[in-house]
Amino acid sequence: MKKINTSPISGTQELLPEIQATFDKIKQKIAEKYKAHGFLNIETPILERTEVLFAKAGGDTEKQIYKVAKTNESMEEATEALRFDHTVPLARYVVEHENDLAFPFKVSQIGESFRGERAQRGRFRELYQCDVDVIGRGDLPLFYDVDVISTLLDAFSSFGLKTPVLARISNRKILKGLLEGMNLQEKATDIYSIIDHSEKVSAEKTEAALDEIGLNPDEKAKILSFIDLNGEASKVVEGIKALGVENTTLEEGLNELSEVMKLLKTDGCDNTIADMKIIRGLDYYTGTVFEFILPEHKDIGSVCGGGRYENLAEYFTDQKFPGVGGSIGLSRLFFVLNDQKLLENSDEKPIDFAVVPISDNENAYSLEVAKEMRENGKTALVVAGSKKLGDKMKYASKIAKSAIVIGDAEVASRKYRIKDFT
Amino acid sequence: MKKINTSPISGTQELLPEIQATFDKIKQKIAEKYKAHGFLNIETPILERTEVLFAKAGGDTEKQIYKVAKTNESMEEATEALRFDHTVPLARYVVEHENDLAFPFKVSQIGESFRGERAQRGRFRELYQCDVDVIGRGDLPLFYDVDVISTLLDAFSSFGLKTPVLARISNRKILKGLLEGMNLQEKATDIYSIIDHSEKVSAEKTEAALDEIGLNPDEKAKILSFIDLNGEASKVVEGIKALGVENTTLEEGLNELSEVMKLLKTDGCDNTIADMKIIRGLDYYTGTVFEFILPEHKDIGSVCGGGRYENLAEYFTDQKFPGVGGSIGLSRLFFVLNDQKLLENSDEKPIDFAVVPISDNENAYSLEVAKEMRENGKTALVVAGSKKLGDKMKYASKIAKSAIVIGDAEVASRKYRIKDFT
Repeated sequence: MKKINTSPISGTQELLPEIQATFDKIKQKIAEKYKAHGFLNIETPILERTEVLFAKAGGDTEKQIYKVAKTNESMEEATEALRFDHTVPLARYVVEHENDLAFPFKVSQIGESFRGERAQRGRFRELYQCDVDVIGRGDLPLFYDVDVISTLLDAFSSFGLKTPVLARISNRKILKGLLEGMNLQEKATDIYSIIDHSEKVSAEKTEAALDEIGLNPDEKAKILSFIDLNGEASKVVEGIKALGVENTTLEEGLNELSEVMKLLKTDGCDNTIADMKIIRGLDYYTGTVFEFILPEHKDIGSVCGGGRYENLAEYFTDQKFPGVGGSIGLSRLFFVLNDQKLLENSDEKPIDFAVVPISDNENAYSLEVAKEMRENGKTALVVAGSKKLGDKMKYASKIAKSAIVIGDAEVASRKYRIKDFT
Repeated sequence: MKKINTSPISGTQELLPEIQATFDKIKQKIAEKYKAHGFLNIETPILERTEVLFAKAGGDTEKQIYKVAKTNESMEEATEALRFDHTVPLARYVVEHENDLAFPFKVSQIGESFRGERAQRGRFRELYQCDVDVIGRGDLPLFYDVDVISTLLDAFSSFGLKTPVLARISNRKILKGLLEGMNLQEKATDIYSIIDHSEKVSAEKTEAALDEIGLNPDEKAKILSFIDLNGEASKVVEGIKALGVENTTLEEGLNELSEVMKLLKTDGCDNTIADMKIIRGLDYYTGTVFEFILPEHKDIGSVCGGGRYENLAEYFTDQKFPGVGGSIGLSRLFFVLNDQKLLENSDEKPIDFAVVPISDNENAYSLEVAKEMRENGKTALVVAGSKKLGDKMKYASKIAKSAIVIGDAEVASRKYRIKDFT
């Protein structure tokens, strides 16, 4: 009889071993790909000073931060909290260790963050994020925008996704320049927000929203045409030029987008499109922005996102650290992929061989056989104890792909047969 | 100029990328060995219900627990806290998921715990622990004591330790039975504590402590002889029998110790001794107990410990789950090994190849060369941008073992030279 509620608390992930093995495999594949592309892994502490976390935060983020205190301390005095993403700790890390780092600093971070969200299905309060960033000191070549997107696409190709992934790419300078050229700077925030939401609402609602902020028919038509531009970079660039707006920022954005798309194709990343619907929130990003989706499962929404930012650490230092980065929200991604059965081999048994001695007399040779298997790169355990062979084999069949029964004869001959359960 | 204190908070680990790479390698090697020996990995949430954590805790442990609350919540109402070890969450997990697990449940857990310790050098408030446990339902064969120790020794052999490791093994039934046979049950707690501390104090102090609790000269002599017994199991067993105390629990303990030591030798674990000084705290453990040390660096103390316990989840359920387990305190271990330079290859550069295009015109072919390297299992990045070749090579030499310079000629010939920095 249970004496206490033993369920994990809501908004956290707790998996059975077979499913955990699939999760771990994906996490490891992502880590391997990040490393293969030359990103150096770091791990900042989960515990952070509140003044560091609050330096940038505000509004909703601030309310979501978990403070910590010992049981005999009061919350009002709490000076420590749990990180809510990898970006703020990375900014602190770069400023703190600047003199020991080589720039551009290609860095990966894989670990848990904590957010006081309202818990709901597939939404986590304790969540894994897998980030890559390239941080420059002073400046950072456009090339690294390609580097980040290419690395993230390679990561997605590595973990046995049964459905294709597509990178949708834009550049914030394009819309910024377009609105400047149209003399709509003052309405920029509203327009960003309307475009950002345009996929979640009907075309009529988007149109109505543009009316509401007072766009004239010509302006509205241009913005609506803009929103619908996606596909090959050359086609999108042509479409934007056809709007007839002249602006140097716009020009710069189009050139950057073309260059990024061209290099991505060269690098074999064919699953990429230019897409003017991609905004990625209102501030922070200043150049390239991107989101990955699974085009055959649009309902899932974005499975990865990121972009270029002018200044990583503006709240911590006067020095300029431009960067480009992206993040895979692994907890949510895994929840969805597992839920919709979009992962290959997710039901594989995690152990290769169960070596089953008939009695304790065969334990020693069984250990030897298991070791032999491990030396060949396999996972192997010994199923010991005085239970009946039938019971031990039933157990073996639950956890392992194959069994090796060891009795007198096997010990004497030092030979054995492998029984396959699959 | 810094605007804020950017140092990590005290008692947490924050490493530069090269050292983080060594840490990550050790963590991965441990995970691989645990997996190879058939331990199924699980990950419980870091956030736990306070009632779960406090069910077992008490005294010092309770004071060390970090509670969490959102910034607009009060600490008094906090119902969630950060786990302080893997054992309590494992107990909850086993009770919660009992019907979906196969027993004996061989389980590993690698992750961070949080303790409100006074921060000091090498002592962590946020720390990695790498645990293995085998949990039985109702009963659990003695064999698994061997399984756990052998797995942990194998883990230690995998990560490039420059100095030997030694497993010191005892069985709590031996001392329990000895004291019963000597009619000293009532002084058992004191004697356990004196033996537990005997390594940290002089022989005179141990003797004085035994006098103080009222042992007569004969009793004292027996306990002192007992404490000094260590080495081959047969020698230790003989030494204990020579004390002339008869007791069935003592007998059982000696048989278990002999059997465990014998099977360990069979399994190739020669770096093991029986050692009667090993106690592992006052309660919890009931059979086999063990500690690993680095005999050439005794000052470091225990680097791994564990043992057999009668009942994992007694605070959560009436059902009996006996287990045996052990834990590597990775944060402290790594701190010490790194500090004392006891790790091989800890200063290796983490990236194999830096591909350096002379100008942006060579970016495309450079991406191709980097990809070729990755396809051969190497790590490779492209050092792009308009900086001078000399600057780019200086950067390459800081982060990579080798460089490949790509200019016009290399693009035309599709051939390149590898420049070795090592």
